Order: sequence, then structure tokens, then C-alpha cells
Amino acid sequence: MKPTSENSKDIGIVGLGLIGGSLGLDLQNLGYLVHGLVHRAKTAERAKERGLAQIIDTNPKILSNCSIVIIALPISKILKPEPQLIEALPSEAVITDVASVKAPVLEVWKNLHPYFVASHPMAGTEKAGVEAGQRNLFKDKAWITTPEEYTNSEAIERIRKLAISLGSQWVTSKADVHDEVVALISHLPVLVSSALLQVIGKEQNPSKLNLAKELASTGFADTSRVGGGNPDLGVSMMKNNKGKVLNTLNIYKQSIEELEEVILSQKWEKLNQILLKNQVLRSNFMQKKNNSIG
Amino acid sequence: MKPTSENSKDIGIVGLGLIGGSLGLDLQNLGYLVHGLVHRAKTAERAKERGLAQIIDTNPKILSNCSIVIIALPISKILKPEPQLIEALPSEAVITDVASVKAPVLEVWKNLHPYFVASHPMAGTEKAGVEAGQRNLFKDKAWITTPEEYTNSEAIERIRKLAISLGSQWVTSKADVHDEVVALISHLPVLVSSALLQVIGKEQNPSKLNLAKELASTGFADTSRVGGGNPDLGVSMMKNNKGKVLNTLNIYKQSIEELEEVILSQKWEKLNQILLKNQVLRSNFMQKKNNSIG
Repeated sequence: MKPTSENSKDIGIVGLGLIGGSLGLDLQNLGYLVHGLVHRAKTAERAKERGLAQIIDTNPKILSNCSIVIIALPISKILKPEPQLIEALPSEAVITDVASVKAPVLEVWKNLHPYFVASHPMAGTEKAGVEAGQRNLFKDKAWITTPEEYTNSEAIERIRKLAISLGSQWVTSKADVHDEVVALISHLPVLVSSALLQVIGKEQNPSKLNLAKELASTGFADTSRVGGGNPDLGVSMMKNNKGKVLNTLNIYKQSIEELEEVILSQKWEKLNQILLKNQVLRSNFMQKKNNSIG
Repeated sequence: MKPTSENSKDIGIVGLGLIGGSLGLDLQNLGYLVHGLVHRAKTAERAKERGLAQIIDTNPKILSNCSIVIIALPISKILKPEPQLIEALPSEAVITDVASVKAPVLEVWKNLHPYFVASHPMAGTEKAGVEAGQRNLFKDKAWITTPEEYTNSEAIERIRKLAISLGSQWVTSKADVHDEVVALISHLPVLVSSALLQVIGKEQNPSKLNLAKELASTGFADTSRVGGGNPDLGVSMMKNNKGKVLNTLNIYKQSIEELEEVILSQKWEKLNQILLKNQVLRSNFMQKKNNSIG
């Protein structure tokens, strides 16, 4: 079996929020005829005003001519897709998703469509909804795919070309490894940062709180940023990647206890070594990405 | 007793690193004759090239005409000042420091000079040393003083005017409250962020590390920033504010355990409430500061 011809310029996007809307803007620029499927009539209206796609409707039938369909819904809806949506997906189109957790998505989708390619563009801002889409969101960002043995290779190639055309760097990984790494570098930071804000939330003394507000500077602002982000997104991360999040949280707790022990026992030379190792590690980590994995 | 006349434009700065050098640049602009005391001849040479003060020397005697002297040394040196420095401080000058921990500084300085005013300008960048000083570092930043009952009120007023003239917001606090709050909003974030980097440092699998490096985006970058900062500064924070840092770290550990329990028991509605509370709290906290405490 083969997916449908590459020559078709009809592409479908399900959901026109931050990711879907941004895809719609860029793909129109690249010459595609973009079909945007949304849930509510009011969203359709606003998406039309913003020009997020050429054809926008609440009826899944608008996907019927598409050779590629990108499911850009919240992860909970990707994991429980509506039957009408599945029915409307053309059987020879290539389908991909954008969820930040891949093993559970593959578990659900492996029997839903023959040309499904699990993928995850690593792009985001703090915005959400129909107002959030913006141009060039994917430029120079990683776009990961997590194929299984059964995944159709021509379908993968189709999504790879699409990601590259949007300026992304194509990265291939096992779904389990992806989910572990995302737990570490994306979901754990949310918890780490959330717990910091919870400490502030527990302070009862108003004069200390006032002074803390006066004194909080960029260090506090940066460290607390992702912990103060979208609650629904935070819950969906932890819910759908629970096991791997709990594993990495456990290692984090050990690290906190090491620091506590070092400070309690006044091992300042050891603390210096830990912080020096961090400094080197972070500086290496943040260097310009080389696309060595793709 | 009264400190020396306000009309003198001779001001001394001990140490021309980030804080001292920045003070030197701004104070010259404000019409002061700045005397900069440094430790090494080589530093003096470079500080002269950079124009960090009009008079720069390694001899503490250059402070003899100054009506204000700002001790802008690392905290360990503020806590163990050299006898030659103490001797060289004019007995009628107003003396202040810039250390980020105030109770231990007051403990040391209360018997060293009659016009000592403990203060802490909340300004910083990631740079250090003679190359770090920059103009307008203190503009719109809080400058905290932590006077004791015995602190000379005219001396406080002199430092207040100086801070205001540099564009800072003057804030008054008890030393103990200051140190608790700084533990919470400045020292705790370093530990929180450090432990996150330590988790990365414990990952042995090179392909996971490579993927993590590919996928790390702004969320990870922000949350890990202060944990990858200057190790000496980190150690001096924890060493000189040990008790209060350990207290706040303990509350932080409880917060992490709450999150773990909520995820483990899949209480997603409760997690949503926690994250929602964080979102509101952070948004309030980061609003434009009103100088309600001063």
C-alpha cells in the first residue's frame, strides 16, 4: 500500500490553535491549499478573519481532498479522537499529530489509520487558542518523529519534507526515549518551577510577601516562568507521561537532598564542584544545536 | 555625633567589579570625584583604561578624603575586612556595603564604624570582575537598607539620597526579614535550578543526552539559568545564609512531595488547582513594582 500522490497541494489541519494556526499561516505561504477543521462556528469565523487557512469549516468533510492531515488538537483529544474525525480522514492521506507525548499516541493510533506518522514539533509560546498562531513558529526548531517498525516509510518521508520546508530540524527517536527525554527537559522543569511558586504561595506574612515582590528580579522570574504557565497544558503533560515524569522527579528529589546534605554539613568545596559541573554542563547543553541525531 | 559634611563630592568605592565598577561609572556621571580602591596593580591598570573612577589605587589611603565609602567586595571579604581597610576608613565618613546577606554583615560591622549603613542594591548580571561594570545598572532596581536601632539616621539619609540619585527604589527592611526573603526569591531558585542540571548530569545514556540537547528549548533554558551561574557566588549565598536557605529548602521539598503525591494518585483536578494558583500568583508577583515598602 502507498499513500496518495505527493503532487496534491491540499493539506488539512485539525485545530487552529497555536500549533495549527501557525502551520496554517506558514503552509499557505508555501503554496498549499489549507483546509482548517475547527470545533465551533465562532472559532471558524475568527480563524477566517485571521486568514489561518483558505477553507475553514466545522464539518470534517472538508478534509476529503487532503493528501496530508495534521491533527493539531490538545493531547487529550488526540488520544480520544471523535469517530466523525476518524471517518473523515481520507484512507490514502498521510496523517500526523503534534502531541508532546508519543508512546500513548501510537498505542491509540496504530489501528486507526495505515499512514499515521507520530510527530512532535518542539515549538511553543505561552499563548493558546485561535489568536495564538504566528508565522515562522517552527523555524530552527526540532521536529521529532517516533516511527514504529510498521510505520509506512513513504508516509514518514512526506512528513519529513513538510517539516523541513517549514524550517524545522528533523529528528528521529524511539517513542519511549522521546517520552523519557521530554519528561526530563520539558515536564520536570514545570514541576520544579511550580514547587518554587508553591513556596511563595505558602508564605502567610504579608510584609515578607511584599518585600519578596519588591526584590524578585530576573533570576526568580526565569526560574518561575514555566511553573506559572497554562494549567491545562501542565496537567496533560503529567497525566499522559505519568510514569516517566515520576521517575525523573525521583532523581530530582535525590539531587535536592544532595544539595541539602552538602549545605547542612557545610561542604563548601563540594558545593563549588557541583555548581562548577552545572555551569560547564549548561554551557555545553545550550550551544547551537548540531543536528547529529536526525 | 554626626557624619561629615554632605557637600563633599569625594566618594570611595572599594572593589571595582560588577557592582563597584558600575557605581563608579554612574557616580562620575553624577559629578562625584570617585576614588576606587582595588587589590591588584593589574586590576588598577585595567580599571583606569575603562574609566571606572577618576582616582584608582591599591593603597587604602586614597579613601582619606571621602565622605561616603561603598564596600563593593565579595561577601566573604565584607565579612572579614582587612585591618588596613578599616584603618583607612575616615571616621566621619558614611560607610555602606552591597552584600546580599545582611544579618551577618551587621554582626561584623556594628563595632567597626559608627556610620555604617547596611545596604543591598538588587542589581546584577552574569558577569563579574573589572570588565563587568556597566552604566545604569541600578536604574529602577530595589536598593534595600536594613538599619538597626543604633544606626545613625543622618548616615541612612545620605545613602538613601545616593541610591535615589542612581535611579534605585529605596526599600527599608529588618535584616532578618531581608535575609529570609532573599533566601526565598534569590538563593532557593539557585538550588532548584541547580538540582535540575544535576539530573541531566546523572544521565549516562549518550543517545538520551544527545536527544535532550536537541529538544531543550526556552523552558529548560530559563529554568536552568541560575543553576548554571557563577559557582563562587552560589557558594557564598548558601554559606552566609545557611539557616534561612535550609528552612526555605525544606518547604520546597514539601512542595515537590505534594506534586509527587498528586501525580501518583492521579488527582488531576487538584493538580489543575495548584497550577492555576501558581499562574495567578506569578502574574501578580511580576506586575510592575509599586514602591509600597520604602
